[in-house]
Amino acid sequence: ARKGVPEIVYAPGKTPEQVARICAAMLEGTERVIVSGPSGEHERLVRQALPDVPVRDAGRALVVGAGEPAPTGGRLYAIGAGTSDLPVLEEAVAVAREMGVAVKTTHDVGVAGLHRLRGPLEELRAFDPDCVIVAAGMEGALPTLVSGLVAVPVVGLPTSVGYGLGGDGTAAILGMLQSCSPGLSVVNVDNGVGAGATAALIANRAALYRNDTESNGQAPGAGVS
Amino acid sequence: ARKGVPEIVYAPGKTPEQVARICAAMLEGTERVIVSGPSGEHERLVRQALPDVPVRDAGRALVVGAGEPAPTGGRLYAIGAGTSDLPVLEEAVAVAREMGVAVKTTHDVGVAGLHRLRGPLEELRAFDPDCVIVAAGMEGALPTLVSGLVAVPVVGLPTSVGYGLGGDGTAAILGMLQSCSPGLSVVNVDNGVGAGATAALIANRAALYRNDTESNGQAPGAGVS
Amino acid sequence: ARKGVPEIVYAPGKTPEQVARICAAMLEGTERVIVSGPSGEHERLVRQALPDVPVRDAGRALVVGAGEPAPTGGRLYAIGAGTSDLPVLEEAVAVAREMGVAVKTTHDVGVAGLHRLRGPLEELRAFDPDCVIVAAGMEGALPTLVSGLVAVPVVGLPTSVGYGLGGDGTAAILGMLQSCSPGLSVVNVDNGVGAGATAALIANRAALYRNDTESNGQAPGAGVS
Amino acid sequence: ARKGVPEIVYAPGKTPEQVARICAAMLEGTERVIVSGPSGEHERLVRQALPDVPVRDAGRALVVGAGEPAPTGGRLYAIGAGTSDLPVLEEAVAVAREMGVAVKTTHDVGVAGLHRLRGPLEELRAFDPDCVIVAAGMEGALPTLVSGLVAVPVVGLPTSVGYGLGGDGTAAILGMLQSCSPGLSVVNVDNGVGAGATAALIANRAALYRNDTESNGQAPGAGVS
Amino acid sequence: ARKGVPEIVYAPGKTPEQVARICAAMLEGTERVIVSGPSGEHERLVRQALPDVPVRDAGRALVVGAGEPAPTGGRLYAIGAGTSDLPVLEEAVAVAREMGVAVKTTHDVGVAGLHRLRGPLEELRAFDPDCVIVAAGMEGALPTLVSGLVAVPVVGLPTSVGYGLGGDGTAAILGMLQSCSPGLSVVNVDNGVGAGATAALIANRAALYRNDTESNGQAPGAGVS
Amino acid sequence: ARKGVPEIVYAPGKTPEQVARICAAMLEGTERVIVSGPSGEHERLVRQALPDVPVRDAGRALVVGAGEPAPTGGRLYAIGAGTSDLPVLEEAVAVAREMGVAVKTTHDVGVAGLHRLRGPLEELRAFDPDCVIVAAGMEGALPTLVSGLVAVPVVGLPTSVGYGLGGDGTAAILGMLQSCSPGLSVVNVDNGVGAGATAALIANRAALYRNDTESNGQAPGAGVS
Amino acid sequence: ARKGVPEIVYAPGKTPEQVARICAAMLEGTERVIVSGPSGEHERLVRQALPDVPVRDAGRALVVGAGEPAPTGGRLYAIGAGTSDLPVLEEAVAVAREMGVAVKTTHDVGVAGLHRLRGPLEELRAFDPDCVIVAAGMEGALPTLVSGLVAVPVVGLPTSVGYGLGGDGTAAILGMLQSCSPGLSVVNVDNGVGAGATAALIANRAALYRNDTESNGQAPGAGVS
Amino acid sequence: ARKGVPEIVYAPGKTPEQVARICAAMLEGTERVIVSGPSGEHERLVRQALPDVPVRDAGRALVVGAGEPAPTGGRLYAIGAGTSDLPVLEEAVAVAREMGVAVKTTHDVGVAGLHRLRGPLEELRAFDPDCVIVAAGMEGALPTLVSGLVAVPVVGLPTSVGYGLGGDGTAAILGMLQSCSPGLSVVNVDNGVGAGATAALIANRAALYRNDTESNGQAPGAGVS
Ligand SMILES: Nc1ncnc2c1ncn2[C@@H]1O[C@H](COP(=O)(O)O)[C@@H](O)[C@H]1O
Ligand SMILES: Nc1ncnc2c1ncn2[C@@H]1O[C@H](COP(=O)(O)O)[C@@H](O)[C@H]1O
Ligand SMILES: Nc1ncnc2c1ncn2[C@@H]1O[C@H](COP(=O)(O)O)[C@@H](O)[C@H]1O
Ligand SMILES: Nc1ncnc2c1ncn2[C@@H]1O[C@H](COP(=O)(O)O)[C@@H](O)[C@H]1O
Ligand SMILES: [Mg+2]
Ligand SMILES: [Mg+2]
Ligand SMILES: [Mg+2]
Ligand SMILES: [Mg+2]
Ligand SMILES: [Mg+2]
Ligand SMILES: [Mg+2]
Ligand SMILES: [Mg+2]
Ligand SMILES: [Mg+2]
Repeated sequence: ARKGVPEIVYAPGKTPEQVARICAAMLEGTERVIVSGPSGEHERLVRQALPDVPVRDAGRALVVGAGEPAPTGGRLYAIGAGTSDLPVLEEAVAVAREMGVAVKTTHDVGVAGLHRLRGPLEELRAFDPDCVIVAAGMEGALPTLVSGLVAVPVVGLPTSVGYGLGGDGTAAILGMLQSCSPGLSVVNVDNGVGAGATAALIANRAALYRNDTESNGQAPGAGVS
Repeated sequence: ARKGVPEIVYAPGKTPEQVARICAAMLEGTERVIVSGPSGEHERLVRQALPDVPVRDAGRALVVGAGEPAPTGGRLYAIGAGTSDLPVLEEAVAVAREMGVAVKTTHDVGVAGLHRLRGPLEELRAFDPDCVIVAAGMEGALPTLVSGLVAVPVVGLPTSVGYGLGGDGTAAILGMLQSCSPGLSVVNVDNGVGAGATAALIANRAALYRNDTESNGQAPGAGVS
Repeated sequence: ARKGVPEIVYAPGKTPEQVARICAAMLEGTERVIVSGPSGEHERLVRQALPDVPVRDAGRALVVGAGEPAPTGGRLYAIGAGTSDLPVLEEAVAVAREMGVAVKTTHDVGVAGLHRLRGPLEELRAFDPDCVIVAAGMEGALPTLVSGLVAVPVVGLPTSVGYGLGGDGTAAILGMLQSCSPGLSVVNVDNGVGAGATAALIANRAALYRNDTESNGQAPGAGVS
Repeated sequence: ARKGVPEIVYAPGKTPEQVARICAAMLEGTERVIVSGPSGEHERLVRQALPDVPVRDAGRALVVGAGEPAPTGGRLYAIGAGTSDLPVLEEAVAVAREMGVAVKTTHDVGVAGLHRLRGPLEELRAFDPDCVIVAAGMEGALPTLVSGLVAVPVVGLPTSVGYGLGGDGTAAILGMLQSCSPGLSVVNVDNGVGAGATAALIANRAALYRNDTESNGQAPGAGVS
Repeated sequence: ARKGVPEIVYAPGKTPEQVARICAAMLEGTERVIVSGPSGEHERLVRQALPDVPVRDAGRALVVGAGEPAPTGGRLYAIGAGTSDLPVLEEAVAVAREMGVAVKTTHDVGVAGLHRLRGPLEELRAFDPDCVIVAAGMEGALPTLVSGLVAVPVVGLPTSVGYGLGGDGTAAILGMLQSCSPGLSVVNVDNGVGAGATAALIANRAALYRNDTESNGQAPGAGVS
Repeated sequence: ARKGVPEIVYAPGKTPEQVARICAAMLEGTERVIVSGPSGEHERLVRQALPDVPVRDAGRALVVGAGEPAPTGGRLYAIGAGTSDLPVLEEAVAVAREMGVAVKTTHDVGVAGLHRLRGPLEELRAFDPDCVIVAAGMEGALPTLVSGLVAVPVVGLPTSVGYGLGGDGTAAILGMLQSCSPGLSVVNVDNGVGAGATAALIANRAALYRNDTESNGQAPGAGVS
Repeated sequence: ARKGVPEIVYAPGKTPEQVARICAAMLEGTERVIVSGPSGEHERLVRQALPDVPVRDAGRALVVGAGEPAPTGGRLYAIGAGTSDLPVLEEAVAVAREMGVAVKTTHDVGVAGLHRLRGPLEELRAFDPDCVIVAAGMEGALPTLVSGLVAVPVVGLPTSVGYGLGGDGTAAILGMLQSCSPGLSVVNVDNGVGAGATAALIANRAALYRNDTESNGQAPGAGVS
Repeated sequence: ARKGVPEIVYAPGKTPEQVARICAAMLEGTERVIVSGPSGEHERLVRQALPDVPVRDAGRALVVGAGEPAPTGGRLYAIGAGTSDLPVLEEAVAVAREMGVAVKTTHDVGVAGLHRLRGPLEELRAFDPDCVIVAAGMEGALPTLVSGLVAVPVVGLPTSVGYGLGGDGTAAILGMLQSCSPGLSVVNVDNGVGAGATAALIANRAALYRNDTESNGQAPGAGVS
């Protein structure tokens, strides 16, 4: 796996047969594969073609394969604005977890009711993450808000949750790109894989040196390949 | 003036001579005219053509003519996100004032530093406005935030302050249109006139009945024409 | 309910199970919930999960729960341009009614046959509303026309009724945003909830003082929260 | 001249020298040439290069050459929504006049104040035109309105008069394209030449047969080339 | 029927029940109704609800009702670029026929093989139409070509036939709007109703006077309403 | 020079000093450099900084350096739709000439007057080119037409000549991309460099083998690097 | 078949019956027809209507008819970035093969792992093609890379493989159009037919002269028609 | 300074007087201010208003104020695709340096000539950065390439360098957003400030723990504020 990033199979545009075959082939060389954006039919065929392989649901993704990655010590805090942003956020979380990162998740935080942000912020401060992901659709303002309140990099994950003009994620991603809060970078609409991988690389870079300090242990996936 | 809305001359697309001539003609039938979006050359010619008429600066607008409108008792609170949003906000304020509304203004409030919102919110609560205008560019999130904190209608006024993709006001207006905070309506990018007129109509409708209560006085511009 | 606005559940992007569960949870703390944009499957599951709760149809929304809100005395006039705009307009009306506002509705008014506007305008004048909502698709000109004929604020509600270039509501919302009639503000395409909540806040602000005059009664949802 | 349409030189994108040279060359084979969209520099050079040729102003166009076309008996009514739409409308009128059509023009009609439409409509009915051009910017609703009130074809001429989102003529042309009034066709934004030529072809086709009735005279530019 | 234009029911966005009910109501006051853009389900319900009323297929439209309109003497030539443009062209033809116009149709003309245009052009010249409709998708160049070869007005009817970037009709309509051939005006993508009505109004205006010449008969739908 | 393509300096976005310095540096290793899109100031500084180097005008490009490339025997026919397309076409021609290709050019061919295409087509057939470039703005239909009439590859070169909606070259490039004439490929708007290089590579591949046949000579720039 | 290009039937927008009928008609005058973009239903009906005619699958196309075209000696190398780009690439290959060109195909090359490009490049060099097609979705960078490494023309074939903003092929085609690698031209998104025909015309022009050298044989489809 | 990010004054949209005044005010509380996007006039007035304050050029930014920030030990590698991307890249570098990060820069790397990437990659590996910024315009492919070759997070910085369709930075940003290389996140077009701040936060988080290991020193700007 390049850079410690797990193998990803983008399901849309592939037939269920292709997805199942690619998964089977990949599982000969790696323990787990992430299938991104599968339809029900994709999922059915993967399960049928690989009857002995555990398949876990991770929002709009599937984790195909047994076991767990070795923890790196990296820490990620993942925030979802609303219920509808959850499937995309879970995909990001699954990718980061595959990269050995410890993840804490909160959701239904909203932006119109700022008081709801208070609890999560306290939990966030206690957790002391190396990076934060904020998934949001509609006007996409939550990542800007969060980025103004924490001192670590924030990855904005716009979702295609919205309505009317700009409701396909355009308003959300434009809002994040316009953000006047430095320290916020973004990935494409609904790109949970990209958000999770970026955040995990950030967290694992910090963990590499934190580990040295604490245990002189081996850090995975860091350095220049 | 229709609905109590002052006469407006949109300067862009007109020659300076046309603007000056239209102002002169209108001032025969009304006390003051608002020139929206004048260039320096527009302003120079208006002043020259009307040497005895006072011309006041109001951001991206000019108020041409002497005197003050009679107060209606309507109350408007006007918030600007940043320094660059001020010219558009001032135009909105000028239009509302011409409609007899009392206006309190604050600015440089921002969205990335929420603590800066505290002072203005207290002032707002003490003033008890009938309506709030929030002007913001870039990601345009401030109107959503404010709308979540007050119980009166909020008019979102997006500005063409921004950069890169969506920086011509597109991100700001899309963000406001996506807003998940009910009670927020919007006008077009940089449309200070529209925001001011809408807010004043809202405020004057409330003032019409508040006045009855307090003084049985005459309310201007209310009712159905 | 914030600002007197009823609890809204946006159905699109949520599973029927999620919608039903959220409704059930909310109904423990409030009398009625509005489900916006449910599919047939959403509706079926809500009815099945809540067999004893009345579910009323309100165009593209459902009102879930028994009883009626207390009237505030606010008055809204709601106009639909064509038959196809009705579902969105009805959603707006349902939200305003939940906020205690009295609503009168007319529809099939059109813009190409101006004579058809005469009857509704007379009814409107007799009703003396605090605010007017005008829902229109296609070229979206009706709100501009109405705004030029009444002296209260108009909320433009563009719908995704149209065809060809701009027919997804883009032409309608751009037309309303360009409107040269001050006093018109807009919400996003098909955003009946936003239009209803904005109009109700405007009407309830006026009703607050009208009530004082007439009865010294308590006005709901007004003032700064 | 093809189809009776006068020779047109589009000035933008050509150097002043090219425009002057093309005019001179064309005037050897035709009496008059229309220069569309000239800058001040274009105009200066044309006048200098052709010192003995009369040059008339026609809004955003110039009519270069002496004399008048022979009247065909065709009749066109031309309406402009606002002062800023005049230059484009005048170009359309100049083209139609060059095609022998009699033109009556009115302007500053607006759409937000419908009463202002009454006078022009009476004049229009008395004139009994074969075709109507309506030029409008901003939300571009006037052509739809007029088309609903007259029984002859209407050519919508959108102009780049506007502001904010859609203000470059996009809202105007989309509005006209969405129009629910059958009988309205459109040309591109600011395309006065196209509107004038289309309207004149329509008028001259009718005049061809009207002339037969009245005088058995020769009709120009009609029939299939 | 306004301006001689038949009653049109736009089916998309209406339920089959609404469409059937509106047809039934309209048929009490007029002989025939055109249903534009019906789905199979729309058509089924209309036929079921009106078992004794003849329903004729007209491409993407249905003509509901018995009989034929009285001929006006107007003449229209209708050209389709390819097979896929036919349903939209047939709708335009149906509308024009309902307005009493005689229509000749040709199709599969193409633009990449100009020789295929020769036969239709000869037929067109022999027919001597008052107006030409050209329906085309993809790059939409055929109307421009035809307009350069005939001396009567051409109505461009862009269709949503295409692929990739601009393939939803955007390329076709932009191409027609950019056309450098004066005398071409356009309607929106797939707007067969608009094209047919515009062309018929043009043809009937000419027929009004041609009839006078030939027979002193009464021309329908002409003059100012 | 890579693939036989000459060195190109894109001037826009560079200071005149940078352009002059890069030219000077490149001329140490190559005989000629093409400067694409220089402003007057760019050109002035290049001439001043390189007083002994000949600078030839090539439409929107400059050819900086002495001498001529060795002819390859490749043949290109270059067609421009209108006068305003010439600067871009000339840039394409200059690039192809630098790659050793013999070029014949025609222009002012138009699309609305097909008869004007006859002469050029005869010349084209006599010349028997290996490739054709067609530059066109506005509706961009000429490349499609030409591609339907010749049996060699056609490179469509859209230009930013146009007006109103799509007039920045968008309509032209979309039209070419939608083209139903197989054998037409395109480059970006105003990208004369790309069109010239593509056409020259095509011509030089054919010339490589033609030369073998005729003279067993060395063909430049062909084969796989 | 024009220019040696096979007959193509674009299935989308046609009924299955129309497609089957057109195929049957064409097969009377030609040996094979390519059906582009058929649905399952299209394919079923074609097979049923033509029970004795072989139908071969070619990605998103079908080759209907028996036999093989005569080889011209032209050589094409076809590269696909990912598995999902294959159906479009196969259509291009089928069209080129029908034009007599020998095609070698490679795929799953990617751009993020440059080492994977090494093998294909060596194969490409050994094959010495006259032209290269590169199909890619998402960010569409592979054609630029390949074009920088080979000395023959490259046809970029963008596909609608992608996600979020620009994921419908817009990012891919824009990227190819922006390419700073001269010698790359493009066709529209998913336009396998256009890419195949363009590449085959290029290859056959070279083959025409290569054949002369080697065998004095007759080359098909070359020269000016 | 929030999060260790220096004070930034966005100059566009502010008058030179405002910029100078804000700088003066800020310099009372901080040592240095970065002015982003100043015009020549902005720069002149800042220098004049602050005659004793050193002003350093940093591409499209200015660093106003004396002294240097304390180094944090964070390491950033900054890559520019072409000469024209330098001003934006330098702004990013200035911001990162103000946050205490050590920066190594390379440029003119390109994507069409992959060999040019070799040298920088070796330097990069030796430097062992915590984060990489890649600035690129046009098709914006370089960040994807680099991200596939290094094991640390990459921040893509699209620039408005380009031409024709998508040349305002749209193609570049869409390409980066579509990137199939996980670990790449982006900021808005020309947003050097955002890229620099994000990269510095990433680097400083790693440095915080690396410092602990090596020296138990104090790390600035890390942790949760
Ligand atoms: N602290 C801030 N938070 C959010 N937005 C801001 C902030 N400061 C400025 N803006 C926005 O950034 C733009 C420029 O602000 P300024 O530099 O103050 O003129 C304005 O349109 C504001 O909406
Ligand atoms: N009273 C009006 N009603 C509607 N549109 C108007 C009105 N006045 C001006 N316009 C539009 O507003 C734009 C500017 O008008 P004017 O200020 O008169 O040049 C024009 O494009 C008109 O289409
Ligand atoms: N390794 C890769 N590098 C670059 N692009 C790729 C790569 N793999 C796939 N793609 C692109 O990603 C899309 C999906 O690829 P695939 O998952 O292989 O079907 C295709 O359009 C390819 O252009
Ligand atoms: N060799 C190259 N490969 C790829 N992109 C390049 C190359 N040279 C320049 N660019 C891009 O082209 C634009 C102009 O480059 P330059 O002419 O060096 O300023 C920049 O935005 C670069 O991203
Ligand atoms: Mg799932
Ligand atoms: Mg001012
Ligand atoms: Mg319902
Ligand atoms: Mg003039
Ligand atoms: Mg049918
Ligand atoms: Mg030049
Ligand atoms: Mg297949
Ligand atoms: Mg500088």
